Formats: sequence, C-alpha cells, structure tokens
Amino acid sequence: MGLLVVGSLGLDTVETPFDKVENALGGSATYISLAASYFSGPIYLMGVVGEDFPQKYIHLLENHSVDLEGLQIVNGGKTFRWSGKYHYDLNVRDTLLTELNVFEQFNPEVPDKYKKSKFVCLGNIDPALQIKVLDQMEGPHFVVGDTMNYWIEGRKEKLMELLKRVNVLIINDSEARLLAKEPNLIKAWKHIREMGPEILIIKKGEHGALLFTDETIFSAPAYPMEMIYDPTGAGDSFAGGFIGYLHKTQDLSTENMKRAVVYGSAMASFCVEKFSTKGLEGLEYFRVQDRFREFLNLSRVDEK
Amino acid sequence: MGLLVVGSLGLDTVETPFDKVENALGGSATYISLAASYFSGPIYLMGVVGEDFPQKYIHLLENHSVDLEGLQIVNGGKTFRWSGKYHYDLNVRDTLLTELNVFEQFNPEVPDKYKKSKFVCLGNIDPALQIKVLDQMEGPHFVVGDTMNYWIEGRKEKLMELLKRVNVLIINDSEARLLAKEPNLIKAWKHIREMGPEILIIKKGEHGALLFTDETIFSAPAYPMEMIYDPTGAGDSFAGGFIGYLHKTQDLSTENMKRAVVYGSAMASFCVEKFSTKGLEGLEYFRVQDRFREFLNLSRVDEK
Repeated sequence: MGLLVVGSLGLDTVETPFDKVENALGGSATYISLAASYFSGPIYLMGVVGEDFPQKYIHLLENHSVDLEGLQIVNGGKTFRWSGKYHYDLNVRDTLLTELNVFEQFNPEVPDKYKKSKFVCLGNIDPALQIKVLDQMEGPHFVVGDTMNYWIEGRKEKLMELLKRVNVLIINDSEARLLAKEPNLIKAWKHIREMGPEILIIKKGEHGALLFTDETIFSAPAYPMEMIYDPTGAGDSFAGGFIGYLHKTQDLSTENMKRAVVYGSAMASFCVEKFSTKGLEGLEYFRVQDRFREFLNLSRVDEK
Repeated sequence: MGLLVVGSLGLDTVETPFDKVENALGGSATYISLAASYFSGPIYLMGVVGEDFPQKYIHLLENHSVDLEGLQIVNGGKTFRWSGKYHYDLNVRDTLLTELNVFEQFNPEVPDKYKKSKFVCLGNIDPALQIKVLDQMEGPHFVVGDTMNYWIEGRKEKLMELLKRVNVLIINDSEARLLAKEPNLIKAWKHIREMGPEILIIKKGEHGALLFTDETIFSAPAYPMEMIYDPTGAGDSFAGGFIGYLHKTQDLSTENMKRAVVYGSAMASFCVEKFSTKGLEGLEYFRVQDRFREFLNLSRVDEK
C-alpha cells in the first residue's frame, strides 16, 4: 500500500548568497515525496500543476517511485510559483513572490486506489484542503500534518478542526509558540496536545528537533553543516523522511518514532546541501543510513 | 589541589516576567565557583568586592568549599553592580545598569597556594586581567576561558593574546560568529582553532551546546524546561560544571569532555530554575547525577 502525500508542487526562484536558480522544482508535496521515496514506495502524490510544468520534473518524480495518478494537470493553467531570497546567515529569508495560480482552484479528489492508504502526510496547504483529503479516506490511517503561520493566523477555525484528526503535527518553534500562544515549548506542547495531536515534533532548523509524546521528550541532535546551499524544503524533507521511515517499518512505538525523527533530520540535511530538490535526487539508501548513523554519533556519550 | 576561578562577584538586580530581586548575589566567578563546588573542592576564588558585600554571601561561598584567600575586599569600596530585565520569552534581556565600582581598579594577585593549580577557569572579565592571572601561574595548567561581545569588539588585541593560552574556549553562538567573523559555526570553529584554543564549546541556550575538537563534533542535547525563572548565570554555571567535572575526574579525553559538557548543561539547568544563585545552593550530588542522566536519556536512540 502506498504512502499518500498531499501538498503543493511549484516552480521556485531562489536566491542565496551562493547562487540563484529560476523555476526550479519546488513545493511541499515534492520535497516530502522525494524524501519519503528512499524508504518505501510507492508514494501516492496528490497535487495540482499547470500546463507549464516541465515534463522533466514529471519524469524525475516517476523515477523516484512517485505515483502520479493523483496529480491534476490543468489545461491552460499556470503552476504555483514562489520566489525567495536568503540572507547571509541563511536563517532569514524574504518571500519575494507567491503566485497561487492553479492552486487557487485546487479541489483534491482522492483516486480510489489511494483511499485505503494507511499513512497520510498532509503537506503545508490550506487546512480546508487537508480536511477534504481526510474526508475521502477509507479505513484507519495514520496522519502526519504540517502547517504554517499563515494558516494559524488566518484559518484558525479550520485548522483546529483538522488538528483533531492529526496524529503527528510537525511544525517549527515559532509556529508552535504562535499556535499555542505560549513561548515555553513544553507548555506549548501541552496546549497543542489538547487540540488533538498525540505527538508533536518541533523543528528548530540548525538546532535540531524535539519530539513530544505523552510519555517522553526526545531531543534530536543538531547537525552542524559546513555548507548549506539552499534551506528551501528542509522542513518538508524532514516530514518526508519521518513518515517514509514509519511507513517502511510500520512501527509506531516511541522508540521507532525517535529513529524516524533522526531519519527526518538526515533527509533535511541532504536537502540543504544542494539547490532545489537536487540534494534529494538519486541518493543511494546506504548514504541515508550512513547519515543516520552520523547523527547518532554526534550526540552519543558514554555514561561511564 | 584546588580549582582556580577568577571573575566577577557582584550584586545583581534582576527583573523577569515572574519576579524581581534586588542586590542578589551575582557575578561570573560566583556562578562558576558554586557550580564547580559540587564536583571537587576546594575552589580557589579570585575576585574583588567592596565593603558593602554582605557577610551572608561570604558565608554562602565558604559553605560551598570556596576558599576566599584570593578575594580582595576593598575598604570603603563599592561592589560591582549589574541590573537587567528579561522579556517575556526570556531569550532577550536589556541591561539596565553596569557599575564596575571596585572592579575598575582590580589587580589580581594570585596567592602562593593557588599558583600551582592544575585547572584554571577564567570567567568573563577584561582579557588583560585574565592574562595577568595566567602570568602568575607556576607549572602546567589547563585553562578554560570565557569572554563576551564587549571584549571581542573592544579588546581584540588582548583577547587574541589570551586565546593563545586558552585550552577550552566557552562562548555562545553569537560570540563565536562575531569572534570568527563567520556565520557558519563549523567554519567559525576552524577560524577560532587557529587563534589558539584546541577545544571550542558553543553554548546555544535552550538549544543545547556544541563541542568541537580536532577529531570530533559533539551535540549536547537541549533540555526543554517548563519553568525558567531567571536565566542569569546559566553560561557561567555551565562553565563551572564543565571544569568542575574535569577537575574531579582529571581526565582530558574527548569522551570525558563530552560528559563534562553534559554536566555543565545540568548545572546550567539548575541555575535557571531559581532566582540568582538559589538554584545552585545546597544541592545534593545525587541530584546532579540524576540530572546528568536525564540529559543523556533525552537524546538516547537505539540504532536498532
């Protein structure tokens, strides 16, 4: 059974202090799918693009075990576009342009063969669309969801409705503080727990990630990198690695969740090493495992 | 043989969203000494206070195995004073007042019995004073040093002279970036390595700490805390726990340095749980060890 991924596919124009790319492959569903594809196929991708979406990107996705029956291609439509510029320290970025285009009319219709998927990853899109997807699912399924400031501020009601149906919420620290209206992350977790998700993962960029469950807190190591070329997609790659590993192992124990967080971190680290999705293309699985072990070694201490 | 600590002793007025204290015990040497005192005594403290320094603080230090032969008490002088206010998220603080007072004329004279100390911790004071202390030492000694933006910007030359004689530099991430003129922390480490220190520890507050050596990088876990009452002294408590553990174990291997970083983090976590130095007073050593294990558990993952 495939892993269902829904989210955006886009053409990104990105400038960093090192380089600039135009109309490169982007979008939350793209990064999630590529990152997840290294663990277990197939990926059932749901999203929408315009007629201008390059054929080479279709092939790229297909070559990474991504099933495209759920991808809507709108005749005469224009693909979602995003443009951003990163500053010298790469932690700050300006969004220069967001053109929704075909995304404005997106009405996700889950293909029959996707409906019984046991694992669903909801990339960062309007919570109303995320709910629409869940409404069409049949049978039990495990839901990993992402969101962002924009929806927390502008779509709170729909988001709260969604959160009741999300098992794992993956957001960054500022989003967690905003959602919970609470600066302290442990207290924020307790508030978010009451909104629905039984597990919260807080991504902290270069500072690692925190996993909160009812029984435990896990602090995944920060992985200091010498060269970060393009931070775009890091959070989505994290989510893709996380759910990809869960989907592969079919093990939802806390111990396995911890490993999944580290695999998520590993995929994010590959992502930022190159521009656009290049860092997630054509990896060998043994490199993913090596990176996983490097992460573990980074935080290993003998108690003595 | 005692552990030599030099730095400031002060009277702090601190306001956080939770409370306010006036003329509480503070200063880098104070926090370092109290934190280190749990590992192995005695602590040889060097610093200066005025006649107004309360007797109860003298007793408090003495009760924590702190030897005060190196403490100068200036007749008619006024103790160093600092006042700060923390904002809602506790990561931002405003310094409201800094009065050097007796510190302005401080001329550290190392008592004979301190001169052969094998471990020296230089708290954050003028690098010229830190050098003066090292100049008086006899025999080999291992030096842990702290500094801050103020000296990096205003006393660069003296600081560079000092760094040649420091084994472990402990600073926070913004200080590391400023000192190395480099936003990327791995590259910053390489620059700082060339300035002298063979080991660099970068404190990242709530995000944990990084240890850099020629062979390895170690990422110490962040320890999410539900109640942080007063962040003052956290960095100094870290340094005190770090060198206190090294002094106790007399083991400078990389593996032991990692443990020392975790003990440093543990002492910092005790420090911020209460106002001023209260969190570091009268702890039982088993509580320090329990906290150390909690830190280790926080980042433990089975590779499977």
